Amino acid sequence: MTSPEISLHQSLDLGLDGGTLTARLVDFPSVSGSEGPLADAVEAALRAYPHLTVDRYGNNVVARTNLGRSERVLLAGHLDTVPIADNVPSHVEGDLLYGCGTSDMKSGVAVQLRLAATLPDPNRDLTFVFYDCEEIEASRNGLGHLVARHPDWLAADFAVLMEPSGAMVEGGCQGTLRVDVKLTGTRAHSARSWLGDNAIHKAGEVLRRLEAYQPRRVEIDGLEYREGLNANLISGGVAANVIPDECVVHVNFRYAPDRTEAEAVEHVREVLAGFEVVVTDSAPGALPGLDQPAARAFLAAVGGEARAKFGWTDVARFSALGVPAVNYGPGDPNLAHKRDEHCSLAAIAEVEARLRAWLTAN
Amino acid sequence: MTSPEISLHQSLDLGLDGGTLTARLVDFPSVSGSEGPLADAVEAALRAYPHLTVDRYGNNVVARTNLGRSERVLLAGHLDTVPIADNVPSHVEGDLLYGCGTSDMKSGVAVQLRLAATLPDPNRDLTFVFYDCEEIEASRNGLGHLVARHPDWLAADFAVLMEPSGAMVEGGCQGTLRVDVKLTGTRAHSARSWLGDNAIHKAGEVLRRLEAYQPRRVEIDGLEYREGLNANLISGGVAANVIPDECVVHVNFRYAPDRTEAEAVEHVREVLAGFEVVVTDSAPGALPGLDQPAARAFLAAVGGEARAKFGWTDVARFSALGVPAVNYGPGDPNLAHKRDEHCSLAAIAEVEARLRAWLTAN
Repeated sequence: MTSPEISLHQSLDLGLDGGTLTARLVDFPSVSGSEGPLADAVEAALRAYPHLTVDRYGNNVVARTNLGRSERVLLAGHLDTVPIADNVPSHVEGDLLYGCGTSDMKSGVAVQLRLAATLPDPNRDLTFVFYDCEEIEASRNGLGHLVARHPDWLAADFAVLMEPSGAMVEGGCQGTLRVDVKLTGTRAHSARSWLGDNAIHKAGEVLRRLEAYQPRRVEIDGLEYREGLNANLISGGVAANVIPDECVVHVNFRYAPDRTEAEAVEHVREVLAGFEVVVTDSAPGALPGLDQPAARAFLAAVGGEARAKFGWTDVARFSALGVPAVNYGPGDPNLAHKRDEHCSLAAIAEVEARLRAWLTAN
Repeated sequence: MTSPEISLHQSLDLGLDGGTLTARLVDFPSVSGSEGPLADAVEAALRAYPHLTVDRYGNNVVARTNLGRSERVLLAGHLDTVPIADNVPSHVEGDLLYGCGTSDMKSGVAVQLRLAATLPDPNRDLTFVFYDCEEIEASRNGLGHLVARHPDWLAADFAVLMEPSGAMVEGGCQGTLRVDVKLTGTRAHSARSWLGDNAIHKAGEVLRRLEAYQPRRVEIDGLEYREGLNANLISGGVAANVIPDECVVHVNFRYAPDRTEAEAVEHVREVLAGFEVVVTDSAPGALPGLDQPAARAFLAAVGGEARAKFGWTDVARFSALGVPAVNYGPGDPNLAHKRDEHCSLAAIAEVEARLRAWLTAN
């Protein structure tokens, strides 16, 4: 439920501390597809700062410094949330701010806005990207629309996607490939099963191979990626008294970013050799790019140990543009999309402080 | 479509030849649940014969001779059909009578009616049973209701169920057992599959055992029964990006009638040892009873070679009453329930003639 005193046309005060600004953003509902008012407020707030050039495409807002620095860093975050589940407006309990989007990822957006407003003279040129529709089907993803229509706005040497990462650097992301394995046979009445050819039984060998499969662990730029090859869905059969003539096993391969999409397909076809494998979905991984100068400086500045990102995220879109990218945000990835979603106020302050230190160091 | 000139209240002339009577019955629609008018006509027609005692329960009609013979033979058939599929009224093409129920089993019912009307002095006492709702859920089966409410009406030394058997004697029937094999695991995000435990993968071993299973062939009373153990349905999984925590394999065991229901369950539990097996449905088989004097005489009279019945039929209900039973009818079992269902007129005449010979021989 949205509290009635919340105005959808309120302005955003970027002088607030990160935690308070996060609360304001959470109390400004922006479920996927209805980000317009929040994008308006973000655009208006940023246009107040003369050191920023602000562009807008749809409900995507891009603010940039143009100081002629030798490196450019991009910080990106999505404005939308999953549907509200009785968890708006926000509330604070001790160090924790509760509410829809606290973790995923209005805390990250608050840090972006704070840095945009308060870094008129950073050591690297900065690009801040706020986009819509990340939580829904890929075809509506605002960052994807910017890649297609305004790739020049996204030019950078390094990108930080401020998705929840527990205030740790998560490098790159794994690729994901979905295939259907189709088994076919011949129908017959169950009472005369020898006249048929059971398609479900044939799935036994597919599942046996998947069960026996030893997923690879591989180190890239010092990060360990763990792959996985799994049957996630299976269905087969016609009726309880019919020998089935079809069974489909839906298999998902999550692979380290040193494989290309084509190599991932080839690998799955090898594992399931002899079976009909149909690719239904494919998204490439993203290399962590931690060997880049900007990334090395970033890692040194934010400290802590980097780890591999396993889920697929929009860093892959930057990777496809040739921009190394990492995930780094104050939210807790395990709380995303949950009713009791919350974020540590200390983590918001810490992430902002570390990024500020990195972007102002001499 | 029912032709408009067909009266639902027409009387049945049991003096017609078997083929013509079958056509009349086919043109008298009696889809499961609406057998009332046909049961009325059958009852009225039989009551015209003083050598028969006629009883009725619901839409089930039982006609009996009471001649004090040392043996009693029961001939049974169901009055209902599957839904009409543009195949009523009937029509003749050469030797073939086309229409809904020609094979399953109004041709058998016509033979029953002909014998009931024309055998006032048979060599064995006769019981003719006409029942409803055979083609739908077992709980509505009219023969089942008679077994429960009027078992005395069904007393006999031997029973012939006139289901389509291609004018061959099909002995007994196999039992059928359904079990669900449930595999469980632990959900996890597909990108971190090592945190989960894949329930679908575990089904691989179940399916492998079923694929490797060597079904038994066994001879009983000279008939060969072939068993079968099959996964007929499988389903598992939560979503395309979740390691599944549940998978269910629906298994059907069709077994020879020398096993009891309990032995069948025990056997399946042995084959699938180590897995959770839940019985969901069980119906016992029926022994062919071809070692009985009445059956031996029947076989000798109708000639040809007997074969095992693989599908489950109502003969099992007689078997449960201690009455050996066989399937013997003019219809073709492979045409039952099909739009182009038809029956050979010669087969109708042949089955009637052979039964008549058996029931009148000295």
